[in-house]
Parts: sequence; structure tokens; C-alpha cells
Amino acid sequence: MGNLKIPEVTIIRISIYSRYLSQLKEKGIRDITSEDMARGVGIKSAQIRKDLSYFGRFGSRGSGYNVRNLDQQILQILGLNTKWRVSLVGWGNLGLALSRYRWFKERRFYLTSIFEFDPEKVGTFIDGVEVMSIERLEEVARQNRTLIGIISVPAPVAQPIADSLIRAGVRGILSFVPVVLNMPPGIELRIVDLTANLEMLAFHAQGLSL
Amino acid sequence: MGNLKIPEVTIIRISIYSRYLSQLKEKGIRDITSEDMARGVGIKSAQIRKDLSYFGRFGSRGSGYNVRNLDQQILQILGLNTKWRVSLVGWGNLGLALSRYRWFKERRFYLTSIFEFDPEKVGTFIDGVEVMSIERLEEVARQNRTLIGIISVPAPVAQPIADSLIRAGVRGILSFVPVVLNMPPGIELRIVDLTANLEMLAFHAQGLSL
Repeated sequence: MGNLKIPEVTIIRISIYSRYLSQLKEKGIRDITSEDMARGVGIKSAQIRKDLSYFGRFGSRGSGYNVRNLDQQILQILGLNTKWRVSLVGWGNLGLALSRYRWFKERRFYLTSIFEFDPEKVGTFIDGVEVMSIERLEEVARQNRTLIGIISVPAPVAQPIADSLIRAGVRGILSFVPVVLNMPPGIELRIVDLTANLEMLAFHAQGLSL
Repeated sequence: MGNLKIPEVTIIRISIYSRYLSQLKEKGIRDITSEDMARGVGIKSAQIRKDLSYFGRFGSRGSGYNVRNLDQQILQILGLNTKWRVSLVGWGNLGLALSRYRWFKERRFYLTSIFEFDPEKVGTFIDGVEVMSIERLEEVARQNRTLIGIISVPAPVAQPIADSLIRAGVRGILSFVPVVLNMPPGIELRIVDLTANLEMLAFHAQGLSL
């Protein structure tokens, strides 16, 4: 389960470092100074050192980091040295976009099941994965040992869908539905609230709109 | 420009209250106790009172809130008593889903222009809005007095696209591209990092994946 006292923003930044390192590795770059890394991700090198210090000692002052080693170690910290089976519930516009989002697979998140209410969509295949009726959610997600679920369904059904996922053994839920969901202890919920993000921009920009 | 010392999480919660109140209003509900409101949004009533107190006095202990009044006042706080013209750049899978996302319009965010690189997509209409060549971005966004831009383009072009939007007068950017963007002072940036969200779930659930 790891150390749950690590701040959330640290994990987000570590995820950013990790994707940057993977890009460097693909380009064949072997070493990077902490200053170049800081420039590359747009985060101060002191902050990077502090974030990494939660998980041990990495690199050395002056000589920087070995790209491959740091990449491997961070992937292990994040739990990405293993494949994650992900279930997507709701295959509307947003669900369709998510099912085609190429970054997920690059980070070892595999959509292994997709569920949808609309009988017209059930039976469609996307990248070899069949869109199934939502009635089969609990059975199939349990069978697949799915630990992560993504919800993009209409608001009124978000809570029962979350409950089904949890009964099937899911430990973390990413919801695109802008409603509060009740979660039992130990289940992690992340809400991506697209509208709230736009509203924050409006809040900051207001007074300039006329 | 308003009071910039208000915590970000307060604005997010205010946005949640606002959408809840709009639903109540549609259902014809006139008054709500602070306890019922707390249950409805899943946030403690003391927290709601504290959040609202940044903007003045609302309701009264015991008698609760008048739905229509509070709704109006919150919309004004958020800057949603006016229409917001929004420009979407990048009409791939995610961009397409965003251009069809019904919640934006309900909250008075109107996509008034869409820009795309792919010449095959340029000229398509969605909900009466033409998908235009990205070359026209700066000219059209300025003409439309667009204050908010949404970016869903490939990572390498995210920064130049952001720069064009800002030159055109945009004051806030919502980016779905998982890269750090440099912003001049006064321009608000929100990044929705889908992959980082999944990685946080994996981080919390790891150890359970085998």
C-alpha cells in the first residue's frame, strides 16, 4: 500500500517527471543534470530533489541522474512496473474519446472492458475490446480482476455504477461525472470536473468579459 | 478581477453548489435548509457557510437559503451571469468529445470557434460552428473577443498554440496536454492531466495488483 502520507501534488509531479524521463529514454539520452531536468519539466530542481527524497536517494548533486535508472525507479514508485486493467463505464462522446486516448496504454493502463447502457452500441469493438451491456459490469470486472474503473455516465446513475465497480473489486475510480460520490474507506476517488475548471477560469477572467 | 486570495478549492466547491442550486431551481424548489444542501452536495454545512462567507452573508442560521437568490448570487460570484466565448483548439477524439459536452452550454460557456490542423476536418460544422484551419486561430479568436481557450493538441505544439491564444487576447486556458506551459503573468492556466489521475489511483492501489 505504500506511504499514504506523501502529498498528492508530489505524486502528480512525480508522474510528470516519469513521462519526461520516458521521452528522454526513447530519444536515447543516458544522463541528465538536475538543472536540465528542471528546465524540461518546468519545475525547480530543489522541488524535484525534495519530491524524490520521499522515496530514497536518487542521483547526486552535480552529476545529475541516470535516465534509465531514475525512470525505472519512478515507474516502480508509481506502481507502473505492472500492467493495470481498467474498466470504462459509459461509452458516450467522452467515453469514446477516453477509449481512444493513446497515453493510457503508453503508461501501461489497459482498457480491458467497456460497458454501456445503449443497446445500439453494445457489441461494437474498439481496439479488440467489446463494448458490453452494463448489466455484465460486476461479473466481468470481477473476472478480469479490474482494480481501476473510469466512470463517464449520466449523473443520476454515477453512484450505483461506482457501487457496482467496488463490489467487483475495484480499488480506485476516476469519475468524469460532476457529482459527489460516497466511497467506502480505502477506495480512492478522483473526480475530473471539466465544468469547474472552466468556471475557475471565468472567475479569474471576469470583469474582462464586457 | 475580484479577490484573488480566495482558495482554489473554495471556487471548485462554489461551482458544485451552483450546479446543485440550478438543479433545485429547475425542479421548482424555493427554499433549502443548510443541512439539506449539505447532504445534497456531500459537503458539511459548516464548510458551505465558510465558503460563502468569502463573498458576504447568505441565508440565515435555521431558516436556510432561498434557492433562486443564492443561485443568482453565486452565478454572479463565478462570473456566470454573462456568456463566455470559448475557443477550442484541436478537434481530435478528445476535442470532438469536448465540442459535444452538453454541460458547458448549460453553464453559459459557448464554443464560438474550433480550430484544427487536419485539412480533412476543416470545414466540418458542429452545432453551427465551423471547424477552421489553425492558421486562422489568432485572427478569429481576437475578432470573437474570446477570453477562454481550450487546448487538446499534440504535446509539441501546445506551447505555440497557447502563445497564439494569448496574443489573441485569451485570459484563461484549459489544457488537456500533459506538458508544462509557460504563461505570462495574469493568464490563468488549468491543466487536466488524465494520465496523472490514473497514476495516482495506481499509486494508491499498488500492492493489490498481483
